[in-house]
Amino acid sequence: MKKLINDPLKVADELVEGLVEAYNGECRHVGTRSIVKSDIPEGKVSLLIGGGSGHEPIYHGLVGRNLADGAACGDIFAAPPPNIVLEATEAVNRGKGVLYLYGNYAGDVLNFDLGAELASDDDIEVRTVLIWDDVCSAPPTQKHNRRGIAGLVPIVKLAGAASQKVSSLAELEAVAKKAVLQTRSVGVSMAPGSIPATGKPTFEIDEDKIGLGMGIHGEPGVGEIPMTSADELTAQMLDLLFADYEKDEEVDALAPGDEIVFFVNSLGATTMMELLIALRKAKAILMERGLKIYDVIVGPLVTCQEMSGISFSVTRLDEELKAYWDMPCQSVCYSKMEGHYGG
Amino acid sequence: MKKLINDPLKVADELVEGLVEAYNGECRHVGTRSIVKSDIPEGKVSLLIGGGSGHEPIYHGLVGRNLADGAACGDIFAAPPPNIVLEATEAVNRGKGVLYLYGNYAGDVLNFDLGAELASDDDIEVRTVLIWDDVCSAPPTQKHNRRGIAGLVPIVKLAGAASQKVSSLAELEAVAKKAVLQTRSVGVSMAPGSIPATGKPTFEIDEDKIGLGMGIHGEPGVGEIPMTSADELTAQMLDLLFADYEKDEEVDALAPGDEIVFFVNSLGATTMMELLIALRKAKAILMERGLKIYDVIVGPLVTCQEMSGISFSVTRLDEELKAYWDMPCQSVCYSKMEGHYGG
Repeated sequence: MKKLINDPLKVADELVEGLVEAYNGECRHVGTRSIVKSDIPEGKVSLLIGGGSGHEPIYHGLVGRNLADGAACGDIFAAPPPNIVLEATEAVNRGKGVLYLYGNYAGDVLNFDLGAELASDDDIEVRTVLIWDDVCSAPPTQKHNRRGIAGLVPIVKLAGAASQKVSSLAELEAVAKKAVLQTRSVGVSMAPGSIPATGKPTFEIDEDKIGLGMGIHGEPGVGEIPMTSADELTAQMLDLLFADYEKDEEVDALAPGDEIVFFVNSLGATTMMELLIALRKAKAILMERGLKIYDVIVGPLVTCQEMSGISFSVTRLDEELKAYWDMPCQSVCYSKMEGHYGG
Repeated sequence: MKKLINDPLKVADELVEGLVEAYNGECRHVGTRSIVKSDIPEGKVSLLIGGGSGHEPIYHGLVGRNLADGAACGDIFAAPPPNIVLEATEAVNRGKGVLYLYGNYAGDVLNFDLGAELASDDDIEVRTVLIWDDVCSAPPTQKHNRRGIAGLVPIVKLAGAASQKVSSLAELEAVAKKAVLQTRSVGVSMAPGSIPATGKPTFEIDEDKIGLGMGIHGEPGVGEIPMTSADELTAQMLDLLFADYEKDEEVDALAPGDEIVFFVNSLGATTMMELLIALRKAKAILMERGLKIYDVIVGPLVTCQEMSGISFSVTRLDEELKAYWDMPCQSVCYSKMEGHYGG
């Protein structure tokens, strides 16, 4: 695996430096390894995201206009330590508190919680909303044990828009919780990525198998299935998604007339061509179910190096979330104009 | 190579169907294999792009708001035949003529020219501007023999914005020509993509070599160099870019104070992590030269399946082009809010 890097042990630092350059003045580098918007106004309720590096353009690429105010960046596939969480928290805080919004991984929870404790010593109010959209990582009754995967993109988009409008941390927390509750994802993997420092594969999978429900680092999912066609796989993945909304007593089943954002993500090496072919089938199935597609996202936004695989994410919108969705946003990871496709 | 497809011979058709679904009503499918905006107003000067499939999200992903009005889509790595060019031309035409703007490949030129002839039988006025930004594919004295590579993204962005403002086809042609003249790219490749119908690699390159100046299908460039660090390679690639502006008598050398858009592209499997690490070094070199970075694009926008490699593109802006750059745009390939980073 030929990687365009310099020192394998410095990739996390160098990519964050590059990310700051991609923002070209819109964001600045803070402390050890945080990235923060340059123009956060006084009195704003702040939104902080973060997580391990190596999954670019998330997590830190979701800092931006009408998106997150800052990100605490970990080393490759590693949570940001508490001192980095603290430096990012202090840098985004404008006196109205900071919402932590990040994927539910044990290391991240531990380190962000320690960061929150340190921040409270500084009299910064912090609340936390965890993202746990990966339906294959635990049953609906244990959904707070689920991992956070690609659903974080629509969730951060919605919370980032809300953070421009709300007047209290509690309001922002409520919007983020609603977005998390209504967002579910299913992922599959066909081949591993590589660990930048060693070139070694992140996991193993047979040449003729697909890991159904496999996590973005190769964590186990529902099981392995034989390699199949895009249409077959798409139908199987959507069945898992539909079933999850049905089984979960905390949300309604997906019903005709429901309005959703649908996101087809590549884990890295899977091409846009493949994403579009899968989207074609997925859209037909979603329409058959009577769902209204409010908007579509498609692209390699939540990756694990050159890992091969895709995920589908559904976010059900109500009137409040639609208004936040329609706001424009801009970042290295995801940008849109005002409004939405399809209306 | 496990690819998520259905019938290997139908990938081009199915991906265009998927692309139309990604636009969710914003664009429609026309004829054999064209995609066209749904809301082109009467009296608009139209912009038509196109080219072979398999390079997603270009070319056809650049149809959109303040971007191209339509795209004529070829089969995988193949130019769109004249009947597809014609159907797309008829669908975008609103009585003010159609500008063809596409990459300079022999097959594309042949087929678009035949399409233009057929369109003239329908009394549709067509003009053509070719994109030839790949400085390694021919010397400055023969630059009209160069290939079009990633520079097409900023060029189509600028021409798409201009197409909303101009009142004649000649005006749009002039803006597109200026954008082409001021845009130069250098690409490198480290590993081939695969041909979707066969799974075979698109070319061969040694494990310890980089193809400097190699085209997006593996076309020969300046030569092969030993695998090196991101910083070393970045400096070498930028030297080729700077030298080209210097040697070309039709443009000024890049000089302190010049304002540029800088685009770091991945050819597919090369990760955002690597792009950002290269951007970090590139930005330092560009700043040392006294160039002003008006905006930055970074991502896998001009690809060749899971090919590994990157390219740098520079577009020098004047006041007219800056105004067009600042307009927002939205498409599956590239979206931005109004304005620009860095000011």
